[in-house]
Order: sequence, then structure tokens, then C-alpha cells
Amino acid sequence: MTQNVESYESIRPLLYPESVAILGASENKYKIGNIQLQALIDGKFQGEIYPIHPKAEQIAGLKSYPSLTDVPNSIDLVIFCVAYDQIKNGLIACAEKKVKAAIIFASGFSEAGEEGKKLQLELAEYAKLNNIRLLGPNCVGLVNTSNGLIGTFSSSVLDVPMSGKRGVGYVSQSGAFGVLTYMAAAQYGINFNYFISSGNEMDTTMEDYIDYMVHDDEIEVISGYIEGAKNPEKLKQAAHKALEKKKPIVLMKTGRSDAGSRAAASHTGALAGSDKIYDAFFRQHGIIRVEDAEDVIAFSKLFNPNRLPKGKNTAIITSSGGRGINEADRCEAYGLNIVRLSDETMAEMRKTLPDYASVTNPIDLTAAASFTNPEFFLDTLKVLVNSPEVDNILLTEFPHSWDEHNEYFKEFITVAKNSEKFIGFFPFPLGEITYPQTTPILIENEIAVVSGALNPVRALSQLVEYSQFLNTVQTDGMEERYEHENIDDLLTPGAVLSESEASEVLARYGIPITKRYVTLSAEEAVERALQIGFPVVLKIDSQQIPHKTEADAIRLNVSSEEEVKEAFMEIMKNARNYNPTAILNGVSVQEMLPQGTEVIIGAKNDEVFGPVIMAGLGGIFVEVFKDIAFKIAPLSRQDAGTLLDELQAKAILDGARGQVAVDKEAIIDVLLRVSQLMLDYRDQIKELDINPLIVYENGIKAADAMLVVTEESIKKELIGG
Amino acid sequence: MTQNVESYESIRPLLYPESVAILGASENKYKIGNIQLQALIDGKFQGEIYPIHPKAEQIAGLKSYPSLTDVPNSIDLVIFCVAYDQIKNGLIACAEKKVKAAIIFASGFSEAGEEGKKLQLELAEYAKLNNIRLLGPNCVGLVNTSNGLIGTFSSSVLDVPMSGKRGVGYVSQSGAFGVLTYMAAAQYGINFNYFISSGNEMDTTMEDYIDYMVHDDEIEVISGYIEGAKNPEKLKQAAHKALEKKKPIVLMKTGRSDAGSRAAASHTGALAGSDKIYDAFFRQHGIIRVEDAEDVIAFSKLFNPNRLPKGKNTAIITSSGGRGINEADRCEAYGLNIVRLSDETMAEMRKTLPDYASVTNPIDLTAAASFTNPEFFLDTLKVLVNSPEVDNILLTEFPHSWDEHNEYFKEFITVAKNSEKFIGFFPFPLGEITYPQTTPILIENEIAVVSGALNPVRALSQLVEYSQFLNTVQTDGMEERYEHENIDDLLTPGAVLSESEASEVLARYGIPITKRYVTLSAEEAVERALQIGFPVVLKIDSQQIPHKTEADAIRLNVSSEEEVKEAFMEIMKNARNYNPTAILNGVSVQEMLPQGTEVIIGAKNDEVFGPVIMAGLGGIFVEVFKDIAFKIAPLSRQDAGTLLDELQAKAILDGARGQVAVDKEAIIDVLLRVSQLMLDYRDQIKELDINPLIVYENGIKAADAMLVVTEESIKKELIGG
Repeated sequence: MTQNVESYESIRPLLYPESVAILGASENKYKIGNIQLQALIDGKFQGEIYPIHPKAEQIAGLKSYPSLTDVPNSIDLVIFCVAYDQIKNGLIACAEKKVKAAIIFASGFSEAGEEGKKLQLELAEYAKLNNIRLLGPNCVGLVNTSNGLIGTFSSSVLDVPMSGKRGVGYVSQSGAFGVLTYMAAAQYGINFNYFISSGNEMDTTMEDYIDYMVHDDEIEVISGYIEGAKNPEKLKQAAHKALEKKKPIVLMKTGRSDAGSRAAASHTGALAGSDKIYDAFFRQHGIIRVEDAEDVIAFSKLFNPNRLPKGKNTAIITSSGGRGINEADRCEAYGLNIVRLSDETMAEMRKTLPDYASVTNPIDLTAAASFTNPEFFLDTLKVLVNSPEVDNILLTEFPHSWDEHNEYFKEFITVAKNSEKFIGFFPFPLGEITYPQTTPILIENEIAVVSGALNPVRALSQLVEYSQFLNTVQTDGMEERYEHENIDDLLTPGAVLSESEASEVLARYGIPITKRYVTLSAEEAVERALQIGFPVVLKIDSQQIPHKTEADAIRLNVSSEEEVKEAFMEIMKNARNYNPTAILNGVSVQEMLPQGTEVIIGAKNDEVFGPVIMAGLGGIFVEVFKDIAFKIAPLSRQDAGTLLDELQAKAILDGARGQVAVDKEAIIDVLLRVSQLMLDYRDQIKELDINPLIVYENGIKAADAMLVVTEESIKKELIGG
Repeated sequence: MTQNVESYESIRPLLYPESVAILGASENKYKIGNIQLQALIDGKFQGEIYPIHPKAEQIAGLKSYPSLTDVPNSIDLVIFCVAYDQIKNGLIACAEKKVKAAIIFASGFSEAGEEGKKLQLELAEYAKLNNIRLLGPNCVGLVNTSNGLIGTFSSSVLDVPMSGKRGVGYVSQSGAFGVLTYMAAAQYGINFNYFISSGNEMDTTMEDYIDYMVHDDEIEVISGYIEGAKNPEKLKQAAHKALEKKKPIVLMKTGRSDAGSRAAASHTGALAGSDKIYDAFFRQHGIIRVEDAEDVIAFSKLFNPNRLPKGKNTAIITSSGGRGINEADRCEAYGLNIVRLSDETMAEMRKTLPDYASVTNPIDLTAAASFTNPEFFLDTLKVLVNSPEVDNILLTEFPHSWDEHNEYFKEFITVAKNSEKFIGFFPFPLGEITYPQTTPILIENEIAVVSGALNPVRALSQLVEYSQFLNTVQTDGMEERYEHENIDDLLTPGAVLSESEASEVLARYGIPITKRYVTLSAEEAVERALQIGFPVVLKIDSQQIPHKTEADAIRLNVSSEEEVKEAFMEIMKNARNYNPTAILNGVSVQEMLPQGTEVIIGAKNDEVFGPVIMAGLGGIFVEVFKDIAFKIAPLSRQDAGTLLDELQAKAILDGARGQVAVDKEAIIDVLLRVSQLMLDYRDQIKELDINPLIVYENGIKAADAMLVVTEESIKKELIGG
């Protein structure tokens, strides 16, 4: 923990410098060195500004200095407005001057091939040795709207209204996308406290800024744009801390599509992990993944820590039937529930509403409410705030005629304010918010007013999910440890373990496997079959023949001594023909498992996230419907349960189609043991598949398994094949 | 066909009257009778306007008349600005004056209970007898922007820019939603030729206006908002005609969610059929279903009959990596394909683009292209228009510095114009289009410029689908007739037919069924079993016991004479215990079918669309994944094939998991026979289920069936149960 505190504190000079020097300041107003300087001045930066220029006496009205060391006072932050080949000398000067931080815009580093990559590593190393925190390179810089630090040459960030809601921080791995989002947010009423473009992340990464904002009391919502996580462990820690503080992290992650992730890989230095795994990571740690910039803005506008939605049950008040239906469709499409109102609630509304109004949800007050009878809005709100079945109240229109002096309006505000329910006014998706007299008062009184252009229903659904996650997640004391035996002897580097070897690994981690014996002769096979009891299964056991069916080296339902002998001979022959050079460990004789529900559990060591655990149901569920779910190790018991719940086919496990429910606890137990195994042998196990794992009403058994040992793992002395 | 022509011609006076009278014209500017009159004047209506007022000499500067009959000239259209109780007298006056059409705003009709419904029917009948076409009641009227006919009291429609693209007509069942869409469209550059609010549709319906627009050469895109179709047959005919003319019909249908359709039913008089069936209907007839008003506008902006997309393969040109990835994600989410560019294409681009640009799709020209090197846009376009793998070219940014005099820009326009590919410029989702010098020229030259706020990628994907549908659909000569026997004797009104009876219906329509005999004694059962060959299946046959498993009155895999006897006795006993008053037809002895792929085919007589055919795969596919698809009868062979292709699990039919492909032609044959059966007996068959239908590599057999006869059907003399 101490280390974390240090880490986020060391970033402070990037955001809150008391003095800034512009290296490469210029008098030419088309040059970045001038644009950046002017932006700092125009932004009314609350600190010292030192232009650095070899010859100029003064630039933009400020005294200029020939070099950093010529500046008489200390410098917290240096902004590099120079090309990539001048960065190194600049950093040496920074070190001399004991500068705390620097922003580097230049490109020509890790994004530009091997040379650039090398240079970037070298500079990062140098900065670290000299305690200089860096933002960039290949970025557009940062903005801190609290102190006027416009640390970017993208000076159009100054051309936006600054009257919006604050308390939101934004960090982006894409410069252009970030600037566009910053500007759109301001247009729609959100002024980010910070906007940071993290670029190549040679030193500070997205995760550092997220961590900083978790610790910053001014920030209520942390948001950003991410292509790939450099430091998922830090992101996870920050996410847990953020959950404790009820501070949502809202990230737009691109590269969802194949094409997108091809581009993301060539675009940044980040190793874009498979998008599904990111998805799992975000869900597991309560990070809200959004699709678009509009979601970031809408979520920020909706979020109010004092008015978190209690659930999905939503009531809509409309004065246009069509709008009401459309909004109801949108709510249900995004997973909200258009609640069926109780008879009491409807009767209560009927007391004041006329016959032609509809009191079923969506509640249609008709056009009369917008024009002649705006008090219907108040009457309806009064009923709904007291309806226990309603969590959220949405309005699609609002009386045009109300203003701050209107008594109905005043009462409306009082009723809304005294309620703890989420209340929102979401005007027509393509319209403007044209209620200048009442909108600011609504917002001030915790009614979320969000233009339909921002897709607020989608954001509300995410807010509901976040709120539910906060209520159910357990982030502490969640890891369970199982006893297990050492498996070092089995992990031949680079090997694909035979079924028997892989099963042995599972057995040593306490996962139930089928009774099995690898036999070397037909006679031994018969002996073992008798010992197990008929019917049995016979399969070839060889690291070099993972696809036993393809080799015709597997026999099911073998029921007599005679059949065992015959099967043994055939399997050995077929295996030899299939792969003449394979090392054949023998023929594995196994118990024939009774029918049960087939489950698949897989695990792989992901380059970004480390061990990732996958589960699905066997057969068509995986093959046709691709119905699988992921979690990142370590799994808590809650994670393992959620993993199963995320399967579309979970009803099967719970006993759909009149069948008995299976032993889910047994599956969870296997998931937790696999999680532990994968972490214990993180450097040695590349992939593991248990397929199928047969689950019964009581109990479970792994019927087949496959394990790939990492090639680079330390060679060990091995017993057997 | 003659009737259709008449029908659409008779609507013309509503849209193109030469003279309009305002019944209920008023001098009070807060009254509808004044607002409507003023709107006609402000809209510069190109025809005569006659205010009707009992006393006034003149209103709004126009000569007023005490009654319709006092007007010296003929009147084409009367706009009723009076309450519901004054409509009848008004219509009588209209009839006297030989008025051709009328618009009625008033509410208080079918939406307001039984009384209103009766009044509405009466007035509709009266108008029909007197050849008066009506729009409304309970509507906001209509706008024709070609002749200045502002036939609505919602005069805010006058407050929008009128410089947009034309050729789009819009008809809405929701007044308020329609007005909002009309206004948003104008803000985003589309001026509807017509906007019609169809209200309660007492006479003219949405379908009439759609049909009118199909025949109107000024209209290129027909759009609308629908809650429920009053006349699906007319909509279908209009849709087919529109396909021939390559005129897309774009409808926003609400009531997708449960709650939405509850509201739609209470909101309009329309019988909202199940949303899934609407979906099927739209898809089957090439009607483009959209989610939101933004889609209507975006689609209208994208549509150009000369530049229909050739396919899904899309290339993105960006100057911001982040924007490119995000747009690629969006394309793939909506079913477009971010095409992998050929080596030739990439090599060609490399000839002019610098190393730091990325030539993999999305093609990232980097920020340089927006600022210092805008010619990169031109260079890239030149390559892509000649790349055979690319169907659509999208730009996410455009050079700010170009204007109409710029040589690069001129060449860009020439290259784009000479290409047949779809080319679009879709700026940042939340930004404005801020390229005032070049945007109009781009649009003029068939480059679609659509603000990201309108979700143009989704609309493009719909345009691609429409274009593909146009190329593949066969709308003519598609019905096949099968020989069949009469089934009248089997259709007892209100009965749920026994399995044997329902199977007999299928057999008479040429659908293969299992060999089966209903037996009355254990001895007869044995005899029949020997005739069929062991093993056999025994089941109770009774209309009163449809759930045979529940009654424990079914035995599978019965393999000997002894077992048959025993099974017969048990089944009769269990059936009798289960339902002491049931009429037991006997025990059905059937062949035991070998294993095959289970398919379900169902049909029901929908209140809106008539017979609807459903297909799915048996077991978990239907029960867990709800993997079913619908088509409306009559099915063409193409429809039946598409129906199967729409199943998620279609891979199973094609032989997934190493199994053989099944006889799809046999399934299609059954679908077509069921379609014909359901149409032939439309009034008598309420529901039919074949479950399971067992399909083999060659051939098919219905293993069980259920048929519900409509209660109101004409009683017939019946043989048997």
C-alpha cells in the first residue's frame, strides 16, 4: 500500500505543477512551441511559466531563458515542444535542474519500429533513475481545468463552454479521440477536471492516472478510453479501491471487433489481449465498459452517489404515447424493467388523472399535460415516489410553461428532492434541451436531465448494474487455498501432456478424475478392466497423439475380456500407423462414466492478464452457440458462481427440461482448484483443458484433459515419457 | 390492380387540394381554428383558403363564410378544427358540398372507449358512402412541403430550415413522435415531402399513404412510424411494388418490448401483433425496420439509387487511430465487414503514404493528413476506388483546409464521382459537421456526409442489407401448389385433435408421418405391432389427453408381443385414471423411428397477419435458446429456405460436429405444405404443431402432431371422436 501512495503522489507535478517551462518555445505562431505557450497563458495557468529559447529575450510577453538551468527558480514541469531526436538532451537538462515531471508530444518512438522502441526504453530508464515522471511520448498532453494547466498544443480545448458539471476525470490512450470527447463533453454539460492523453506510456500509464483519481477527492467519476492495459494488476487494485469509495470507473475499450484489434495492435505499443478477456476483467472488477463517447458523458451526468438506483424497475411518464412506447422499448432493450404498476398505484393515479390518460406504465398523460394541464406531471410524480415497486422514474417531456415562480413546479422539485428514487428527464433523442428556465433547477435538485442524443437509457442501465455490483461484490478475503501435491515432475517444457499425465496433474490438485491405468499389454489391460469393472473405455496414451479420435485410438463401452484384448491390439496398431515416431506410453484403461451433463473448463495464460479461466457446457453449446464465459484468476467463490451464471445455458445446470439440477458446487470447486493450479504454475502451464468434465446430481469427474507446458520453462528432471 | 390505382388516386385531395376550408376557423389566436388557419397562410399554401365561421366577415385577412355551402367555389379539403361532437354535422355539410377529403384532429373516438368506437364506425361509414376520404381522427394532421399545405395545428413545423434533401415521405401513427421526427430531420438536412399523422385511421391508414408514395415519382424513400398494421395485405402489396421500383420503405416499429406492446395496445386502436411476427413480415417483404428516428434520417441521407452498396466489405480512412478503431468496431457490430486489404492494395498505398501511416484497414493516415498532408486522403481514395475487395469507403475525418478552389479537393471529387462504390464521410458521433466549404460539394457529388450523431454506420448496414435483398428476392410466381385430400371431416370446431387425427391431417397434405394404427384391444395392438415390426411405440389416442407423458400413457421401444400387451393395458388404465371422462379412441401403435435430427414446425393463425409459420430445432434449441424463426404464409420456396437459415443452430442442419447434413429440402417441403394447409383452412385451423419432426440424411417423418381447431368454425358432420 505504501508503494501505491508514493506512486500516485509522484504524478502530482504533472497535474499540479507550480512552475512550467516550455522547451522549444517559439515566436512563430504556427509552431507547437508557440501554440502551447499561448494556450497556457490563455488558460490562465495559476503558476510560473518559463519559455526556453536559445536566443529570444521574451516570447508572448514572458521573459524567456536560453536553457532550463538558466531559470533562477525551481521547475516542476517541463513541456517538450521539440522533435524526438532532441528529447534525450532535454531530459539530461531536466535531471540537472531536478525537474519533477515532463510532457513529451513528439512521435518517433515505440510506434515507429525497433529503433524508436529502443530509444524509448533508454529514455524511460534515464527518467526513472532521475525521478522524473513522464507523460507521453506520442501524445497530445493534458489539461487540468482546476488550475488552468492547458498542457497541450491542441488549443481548441479552450473553445468550449466551461459552465458544466465537474468531478469527472478522463484519461485516453488516443489523443484525437480524447480531444473530441473532451470537447463533446463540454458541449453536453460536463467539464472534465482532468483530460490526459497518455500516448505511448513510456513511464506513466492510464492505470497511474486512474489510481491518482481514485485518491483524488475532487473526482467522483473516473473515465477513459483504452486500447490495451499495460498494467492490469494496478488497474485491478485501483478498481477495488474505487469500489470501496463508490467511485465508478467508466472505460471505453476499443478493439472489440477483429479488425479493430488488428488496428489497435499496430496503433499503440499495447499488446491488445483478446477482447472477451478484457470484458471479463472489467466485469469481474466492477469497471463499467461503455461503447461510445456518449456513454461516458451520459453516465457522468447521471451519476450521483446519493441517488444510486435501487433496481431495474422503471416507470415512464410521458405526454406522447409514441415517445412512451419508444422509451419503454429502449429501456427493455438495455435490460431495464418497465415495471407493471400495482393496482394501488394505478388507483392512486386515477384519483387525479382524467379518463383519457393511461395509468399503465408507460404512463401517458397525453398532450394535455404538455399544454393545458401540466399539473398532471406533479400529480403522477407524487404517486410514483411512494410506489414501492418503482425504482426509477423517467420523464420523456416536461411542461414548457413552468418557470421558477410556478407553484406546481416548486412542489414538483420538493417532491423529487425528498424522494430517494432515481429521477431523470430524457428529452427526444435528436432534440435539444429547450427548457432554459427549469433545466438548471432540475439538475441542481438531483434530477438528471440528459439529452436523448447521449443515449441516457443505456447509461442508466449501466448505472443500475454498477449499483447492484456495489451491493453484492465481496472484494476481501476471497481466496481459498486447497491442499495439493507437487506436480513439477510432470511438466516437461514444451510438451503436450498425454491424457494420463494431464489427469494426474488434476488428481494432485484434488480434482476427481476417472479411474484409469496405463497398461502395456493386452493381458494387463484385461486385469485392470476386471479391477475397474465392465464396461470400460480404452484409449491410447501418448504426448504425440492428442487427437485420439482422429487416430482411431479410442474404444468406448468395452464390455468383456475378449473385447478388451481386441481393443488393446487395434488401438496400439492404429496409433502406430497414425504416428510412427510417437512415444506410446501404453493403452489407458478407464472406467466408463455413466451419462451426466458435460461441462468444459479451460484455462490459458494470457499475455496481458495472466491465467484466465473459461467455462462452458459441452457439445453444441460451445461448438454452435459459442456459449462460454471467462474470469481472470484468482477466482473467488463468488467469481466462480458468477462465471456459471453468465452462461446462456445456465438453465441446463439448474435442471431445465425436467432434468435434475447438477452439483454446481462441485463445478465451482473444480474452477477454484484450476484457478489455483494455473497461478501456482503460472510460468509453466500455457494451457489446460478439461473436456469433458461430467457433472452429476452429486459429484463430478474429469473424463479427459489436455495440458500444454510452456516452452521456456525451466527444464526439470523427469520421470517417464 | 385497378382498385389499387383508384385507392391511391382518391387520397390525392388530402395532399394536393386546390382549395381548403377551415371548419371552426377562429379569431382567437390561442384556438386551433386560428393556429391552423395562420399556419396555412404562413406556409404559403398554393391554393384557395376559406375560413368558415358563423359570424365573422373576415379572419386573418381572408374572407370568411358562415358555412361550407356558402362558399361560392368547390372545396377539395376541409380541415375540422372542432370537437368530436361537431364532426357529424360537419361531414353532412361536406357531403352536400361534394367535398373530396377531410382532416379531423379531434379526439374522443376509438381511443376513448365503446361510445367513441361506435361513433367512429358510424362516421367512417357515412364518409365512405359520400366518397369523402378522411385523415384522423385523433391526429395532428399533415404537411405537404411541395405546395405549402400545412394541414396541422402543430405550427412549430414551420420553424425549421428548409434547405435539406427532398424525396422522402413520412407517415406516423404517433402525432407527437412524428412532429419531433419531422423537425429533427429538417435540422439534420432532410425535408420530408410529406409528413402525415394518421391517428385513429378511421378511413385512410398508414398503408394507404405508403401505397400513395410508392406511386409518387417525387418520392425516393418512404418512411414512417408504426405501432400496428391495420391492413397488412395492402402493406405487403405496396412493399412488393416498392421493391420493383427500388424505393426503400423504412419503418420504425415500436412495441418491441412487452411493456411497449402493452402501451401500444392501449394507445391506438391497432391490434398489436406479436413483435416477432412483425419482424418476420418486414424481413420477408424487404421493409427496413429501424430502431429510432435517427435511423430514418440517416438512411434517407445515405440512400442514393445510383450508388447502392455492392456488399459488406468496408474500408475506413482515418487520421486518428482511435477514431478508426472505434468506427471499425461499430461497423462489425452492425454486421459490416472491415475487409482485409489485398497485398496489391496495400503496396499501392505505400507508394504515396509515409512509413508512419498504417495501410492495414482501418487505414490510419495519422494526424499529419488532417494538418500538414491532406493530399493523403486523395492518394488513398485513388487506390481504394480501384480495389476490387472494397465495396464501401468511409472517412472519419476530412481535411479542414480544403475548399472549392483546392486542386486536391477537386481531384478528390472527380475520383469519387467516377467510382460506383459507396463513399461516406461520417464525422465524430457527437460533433457537428463543421466543413462548410466542402460539405455541400461532397453531398452534391454523391458522397454521403452524415453526422455521427445519426448512427450512420447502422444505417449503412441496413442499406447494404436492402441492396442485397433487392438482388436476391423473387417476388413473382413463387407459390407452389401441392395435391392434397379434403380434411373437413377431421376439423371438429374447438377440438384439440388427438395425435392420430392431427397426423391424419398431415398425411392428407402429403407430409410423411410414422406408420401408426389406433387399436382397441391388446390383441389388435400385438397384430399391428407385428405388421409394423419391432420395436414399436404405444401411446394413448384421445382429444382430451394431449399431454400423454403427464398421463403416463406412452411407452417407447416396446420390443415383444408380451410387452405390447402389457403396455396396452397400462396405457388404457393410466389414461382412464388421469381423465375419467375422456373419450379414449384407443392406443396408437407406431413404428419406433431411428434417431435423427429433431425439428419443430409450428403454425398459428395470427389475428393481424393470418397464418404464420414457425420453425426451430428440437429440445434445448427451442427450450433454452429460444432459437426459432417465423415467416408469414404463403411461403415461397425461397422464404422456406431463408426461414431455416435464420436459425442460430442452422449449422446443425448443415452437418456441424462431424455429423451428416440433413435433408433440408424435405424440411422445406413440409414447410410449404404446412403453409398451404394453414391458408386453405385459414378459418378453421387455429394452431398446428409438428413436434418432433425427425429429419434424416434422406427423408423426414412427423413423429407427433397437435392441431387446434378454431371454435367459431362452421360445424360439420364428423366421423369418429
